[in-house]
Amino acid sequence: MQHDPLPDASRRKIGDSFARQDMMVTLGAALISIERGKVVISSPILDAMRQQHGFAHAAVTFALGDSAAGYSALSVMPEGAEVLTSEMKINLLAPAAGERLQAEGYVIKAGKRLVVVGATVVAFDGDQSRDVAVLRTAGHHGADRGVMQDGPL
Amino acid sequence: MQHDPLPDASRRKIGDSFARQDMMVTLGAALISIERGKVVISSPILDAMRQQHGFAHAAVTFALGDSAAGYSALSVMPEGAEVLTSEMKINLLAPAAGERLQAEGYVIKAGKRLVVVGATVVAFDGDQSRDVAVLRTAGHHGADRGVMQDGPL
Amino acid sequence: MQHDPLPDASRRKIGDSFARQDMMVTLGAALISIERGKVVISSPILDAMRQQHGFAHAAVTFALGDSAAGYSALSVMPEGAEVLTSEMKINLLAPAAGERLQAEGYVIKAGKRLVVVGATVVAFDGDQSRDVAVLRTAGHHGADRGVMQDGPL
Amino acid sequence: MQHDPLPDASRRKIGDSFARQDMMVTLGAALISIERGKVVISSPILDAMRQQHGFAHAAVTFALGDSAAGYSALSVMPEGAEVLTSEMKINLLAPAAGERLQAEGYVIKAGKRLVVVGATVVAFDGDQSRDVAVLRTAGHHGADRGVMQDGPL
Repeated sequence: MQHDPLPDASRRKIGDSFARQDMMVTLGAALISIERGKVVISSPILDAMRQQHGFAHAAVTFALGDSAAGYSALSVMPEGAEVLTSEMKINLLAPAAGERLQAEGYVIKAGKRLVVVGATVVAFDGDQSRDVAVLRTAGHHGADRGVMQDGPL
Repeated sequence: MQHDPLPDASRRKIGDSFARQDMMVTLGAALISIERGKVVISSPILDAMRQQHGFAHAAVTFALGDSAAGYSALSVMPEGAEVLTSEMKINLLAPAAGERLQAEGYVIKAGKRLVVVGATVVAFDGDQSRDVAVLRTAGHHGADRGVMQDGPL
Repeated sequence: MQHDPLPDASRRKIGDSFARQDMMVTLGAALISIERGKVVISSPILDAMRQQHGFAHAAVTFALGDSAAGYSALSVMPEGAEVLTSEMKINLLAPAAGERLQAEGYVIKAGKRLVVVGATVVAFDGDQSRDVAVLRTAGHHGADRGVMQDGPL
Repeated sequence: MQHDPLPDASRRKIGDSFARQDMMVTLGAALISIERGKVVISSPILDAMRQQHGFAHAAVTFALGDSAAGYSALSVMPEGAEVLTSEMKINLLAPAAGERLQAEGYVIKAGKRLVVVGATVVAFDGDQSRDVAVLRTAGHHGADRGVMQDGPL
């Protein structure tokens, strides 16, 4: 999957959606890069978001990976389309230790109706980095708001 | 799977672990019920945790379901054991709309080494409620801390 | 989910589809029960379908569970609709030992566009039985053949 | 993950296990390549293994991908170790049409106890090929046969 530059309208659509996600604000997350078929999101590991061993909670890893994957899907879809995400699988590879997490979402298949996307989440700890999770989902184009109201978002 | 009362030591172990999760505090989540093989966690839907359409972010649903499922696994394991969770599958059934989410974790299989658990997450909106997600994972007993440091938490 | 009787046309649609699956014939599988939202498929464990330890190969368990789940989805959908299955998660609970496997597919959520289904697969060994797997998928209505040709089947 | 040559003992262990899988014989499947962290399995699409639309049944795709992934895990594990596979996620990308399927299993993470592996399955149709599925699982080292008898295989 090559990563072409996106038209400004598509970039704005993704940026606007991201900005409306209070969760992303709460996490201190930022959109780092938007290309066609590839979106990168980064956030610090906040104290408020830790689990019982002091690492970032898996829900943070999930939030970043899910959003990066979803926006990578949106980046390859026709204008006006919405993504209907109904399931997500996450594999946790290592504790999310360090100062920062970064999720890269990418498109595996972009069909007329089905978009399969994945994400890799990396933790940065000083000058070290390591993969902490991989995610995968099959998203589906939502043709209209009726669909969105029926199904999960 | 019948749900026997748990010895106090096991209840304390789960309660202590929950209390050390800053993420649960941040979500305003509370342990509502701890039985052998079944754990219930509830939280309000905070403004800070919403996605772009105003519903609770899927990461909140994930956080509650993941914790409820994990603690239900812990509730059937021998004293001193830790759970190694390495993957989770979530199916989103409906938007997480309303005032409150509640996750019920339950044990599907408790083997000598393998514990398979699931969770259902329900949203309460006024006097209405509906299922918003189901989760499932296979956890593995971690015999010692070396294992926990090798693998994901 | 209650299980109403199905109109004969719907039962025939499922039966005809099942009969066209050479794989089901090869497995010696039979449709045991078709209700609205619940379909049961049973098969012997054939020698030709074993893995290296002499148990039924996980692919047999997958085949039965996947078909039972898919037909349970079809049983709640409008006439003329097709199911687009794009992902499946299987948890293996125990070795598939014995003479026979039986899969029960059931509907978890039946929305306007999204149908979430699951299946449980049980092994029968003499007068013993035990759960060997649980499956879950999110299927999507395929409105027309164009969709079916685009996506996976 | 680099792919070093494997010692002959490890190659024999994988080859012997594969040969004992009656299912692989029934599918006409062959081990095409065994490297450290990467195993390739190929099979024709037999008439006996088709679904209702004439494509290879998803269970065939699953069987090949599952085996390729599992053997790739085995290829990075210490001598004498067994793999305990307890769950698998498959995403179907396109109908399995054509003459032949080929699955490549690869290691995503090889830890002291946890091994995360994936597989990609490709269909060959004349001089065309396309990805038909991706699989992912987290396997766990089984230290002894007691473990293997407790859990799924």
